[in-house]
Amino acid sequence: MTYKAEINVMPLKELLDPQGKAVTSGLKNLGLDEISNVRIGKHIYLEIEADSEEKAKSSAEESCKKLLSNPIMEYFEIDLEEVG
Amino acid sequence: MTYKAEINVMPLKELLDPQGKAVTSGLKNLGLDEISNVRIGKHIYLEIEADSEEKAKSSAEESCKKLLSNPIMEYFEIDLEEVG
Repeated sequence: MTYKAEINVMPLKELLDPQGKAVTSGLKNLGLDEISNVRIGKHIYLEIEADSEEKAKSSAEESCKKLLSNPIMEYFEIDLEEVG
Repeated sequence: MTYKAEINVMPLKELLDPQGKAVTSGLKNLGLDEISNVRIGKHIYLEIEADSEEKAKSSAEESCKKLLSNPIMEYFEIDLEEVG
């Protein structure tokens, strides 16, 4: 079966996010001062061939831990869905 | 009212995504060859002060169009939720 995973890799909440801070002030300069607390991370879409949702989830987690995220600075969230 | 927006900015589907291709082959080298079609974009979290969901949505769209995405190479999706 094929599963699709939508993964967010975001800077840990305890850490400053300099890119987010820069975007917050960029938006203020554009007149959008109703926007605050911007945080910027990565969004990753991928497809997984697996026998079960269990196995697909474990592949997705392994890919995050081994390559897609840096656990010292980032956390990840995985949203998995069967596509056929 | 405060709204939170979860925004994905992704490379257009018609375009190659070299970063995604590199990650796909990186994952293969790590033994995760059940994973394919990786595409990598940005995930942005932000908070908006607005009188109505309508206005919050229009602020979020304006921020995407003016700063967060490059329409030549990327599309964006906005998920808006009231937080209080």
